[in-house]
Amino acid sequence: MTERATGPAMPDPAIPVWAREAIIHAGRRMDARGWVPATAGNISVRFGEDRIAITRSGGHKGFLDSLGVMEVDLDGRAVTPDARPSAETLLHCQVYRLIPEAGAVLHGHSVAATVLSMTEPGAAIHFAGYEVLTAFEGQTTHEVTLDLPLVDNDQDIPRLAGVVEPVLQSLPLGYLIRGHGVYVWAPRMDTALARLEALEFLLACELERRKLR
Amino acid sequence: MTERATGPAMPDPAIPVWAREAIIHAGRRMDARGWVPATAGNISVRFGEDRIAITRSGGHKGFLDSLGVMEVDLDGRAVTPDARPSAETLLHCQVYRLIPEAGAVLHGHSVAATVLSMTEPGAAIHFAGYEVLTAFEGQTTHEVTLDLPLVDNDQDIPRLAGVVEPVLQSLPLGYLIRGHGVYVWAPRMDTALARLEALEFLLACELERRKLR
Amino acid sequence: MTERATGPAMPDPAIPVWAREAIIHAGRRMDARGWVPATAGNISVRFGEDRIAITRSGGHKGFLDSLGVMEVDLDGRAVTPDARPSAETLLHCQVYRLIPEAGAVLHGHSVAATVLSMTEPGAAIHFAGYEVLTAFEGQTTHEVTLDLPLVDNDQDIPRLAGVVEPVLQSLPLGYLIRGHGVYVWAPRMDTALARLEALEFLLACELERRKLR
Amino acid sequence: MTERATGPAMPDPAIPVWAREAIIHAGRRMDARGWVPATAGNISVRFGEDRIAITRSGGHKGFLDSLGVMEVDLDGRAVTPDARPSAETLLHCQVYRLIPEAGAVLHGHSVAATVLSMTEPGAAIHFAGYEVLTAFEGQTTHEVTLDLPLVDNDQDIPRLAGVVEPVLQSLPLGYLIRGHGVYVWAPRMDTALARLEALEFLLACELERRKLR
Repeated sequence: MTERATGPAMPDPAIPVWAREAIIHAGRRMDARGWVPATAGNISVRFGEDRIAITRSGGHKGFLDSLGVMEVDLDGRAVTPDARPSAETLLHCQVYRLIPEAGAVLHGHSVAATVLSMTEPGAAIHFAGYEVLTAFEGQTTHEVTLDLPLVDNDQDIPRLAGVVEPVLQSLPLGYLIRGHGVYVWAPRMDTALARLEALEFLLACELERRKLR
Repeated sequence: MTERATGPAMPDPAIPVWAREAIIHAGRRMDARGWVPATAGNISVRFGEDRIAITRSGGHKGFLDSLGVMEVDLDGRAVTPDARPSAETLLHCQVYRLIPEAGAVLHGHSVAATVLSMTEPGAAIHFAGYEVLTAFEGQTTHEVTLDLPLVDNDQDIPRLAGVVEPVLQSLPLGYLIRGHGVYVWAPRMDTALARLEALEFLLACELERRKLR
Repeated sequence: MTERATGPAMPDPAIPVWAREAIIHAGRRMDARGWVPATAGNISVRFGEDRIAITRSGGHKGFLDSLGVMEVDLDGRAVTPDARPSAETLLHCQVYRLIPEAGAVLHGHSVAATVLSMTEPGAAIHFAGYEVLTAFEGQTTHEVTLDLPLVDNDQDIPRLAGVVEPVLQSLPLGYLIRGHGVYVWAPRMDTALARLEALEFLLACELERRKLR
Repeated sequence: MTERATGPAMPDPAIPVWAREAIIHAGRRMDARGWVPATAGNISVRFGEDRIAITRSGGHKGFLDSLGVMEVDLDGRAVTPDARPSAETLLHCQVYRLIPEAGAVLHGHSVAATVLSMTEPGAAIHFAGYEVLTAFEGQTTHEVTLDLPLVDNDQDIPRLAGVVEPVLQSLPLGYLIRGHGVYVWAPRMDTALARLEALEFLLACELERRKLR
């Protein structure tokens, strides 16, 4: 299910098995929920202070194997020989650079996230009163309003990263690129998947509420 | 998929295997339906008059194993050493205390339940004319109106339990906490799952009907 | 997942294995689509001119085993000892009695069928212009309008059967009981499942169209 | 799950195993997404310049085995003995004839495609601003508008092919037959599935957006 003409012939032995398996598991889970259509989405884990394992460019994230995972450094440069990182690798590295406790980053494209991001006229989607808000770091009550900021999409990823840079450390939920999808992170892959599920649940609820108006 | 830093290293041998397996099965089923996003939801069974097996605090209910299940007493105090119950354990124990025939309690968060609970201005959601109403205890006809009461969410669980206490024994469908999710119970886990499915089906129908207005 | 307190202890050896397996497979398929919530739905096949294998009363149709299948005669009377048929068995038998080529009957409860049946003011739902209409017996073009008649729900199943009786042989798609669900049939279980899928696809499309109005 | 009364008794040995497996895998994937209800949809791969493996007429595409795959030539005539191709085989062959790099063709019926095709008054559905647009051949930015043309359904498949013929080579997304479903193609089965997923994602988003109006 992947384009491999120019890729490596065997898994990169420098990437620990747990890191590859965490990425493969996350890809299957995201696919089962419909959040990685076609070759969309990308998935990474940090396995050393400046060592990142990430899905390669192209390929379906629901059908990953170890060849679909490569190493990059904190600047997004390929460490695994003959493997090409996706342009959006920079957005993963930015999270690891600015947020020392981040251990996993997930980027997915759901229908709800895409539709809300293209129809919400404001600069953020506000969530208030949901019990699921307590799933996010440091939140102890549903009696709070948390914002998911909307960032305009840009094929110039360094420029897009520049827009996110000043606010990244203060985002409780992650961020949403218009017409594109969400970025979330957490200390481990399981907590990152839980964050993504919580956020997609909030987005699904919000989309349904807007149909009732 | 769970936070285990402070948890037990092996399953509690005092909990019968059937009780653990019933909880694990219920968690997978609820996850397959999308009713336990992130670490939401909790699941319990009674395996003795005052003995309750329940999911521990945190962790994803779709990926439970035996370590994710602990024993509590009817007041919600941990019996399994080194295991921390969720705050909402009290709502499970309340059901077992007030309803002697209750053998299993399920709490899930669906999109439909959450959205309806946050948009319904009344104190209950009324269901009338659905054949599926006959799935509930003592119901023999669809020609009836059954109410699912709405309770305001509260992080102070004893206070929330106090609101539910006077009416709990008279609720045909269970109850729904605003922005949060449903509580249902039945004599066994299979009948509790059937109740939950029936209730979520009713909620899904009701949400669709409100979009047609 | 079933209530078995009063049921038989072993599969009825008079029911051929293929008939039991066809019913079990159909139940899993219908459950995967969400069409048999709680203990809803029932499933039958004809394995002799006047011999019917059908799901027993109660129990979840997504978790059937051979004990969940019993034999009834064309009048709906139990042939398998100690097994209780569901009241709706009569509606299956009516199909086998009136339609000699019917070899399998399916009854499911979907959200779309339930919602449309409770909001459609007319006596039928009309489907026109859908390619999927060609999946039904004798249809060779999408340029046709086929009707799914709506029948009022009734806990008195013989009376409900009496309403259906005069028109049953002329129904191209099956029929829909208000607030309840659809009945479809075909010469074999695979063709009956295909009919049910085609009909539920039409109902899902129709429900979406009504939201766009 | 297929009508086999008149079909071959063993797989056609002239069709390579990889071609049969690609078709069987695609059918299961499309079924899991709900895109091949009943006997709808068809799936093909090119395994030689003028050799096409394609699903036979009838049968459920989610339960294919090797007997469900036959060979046809570029004019859609059966090469496998005793096997009957579907009428729509001609639409697959048209793609292979006009687009030399096409290696796989997929035709599915989704609810979103069907509903949009029957409610859109224009001659095409326009997609703009979606990141997923970059999944299509030669697209490098979301800042583009791509059109999915709508073709009227016709049981006369040669006539329908005649309508598509003049424009087929210039279609970036494939095409959509009203009330019927989409046709997409790509150099390989994995890329064709990715295209189909991308297109169905766009259609699902578009349908949701129209409910928000």
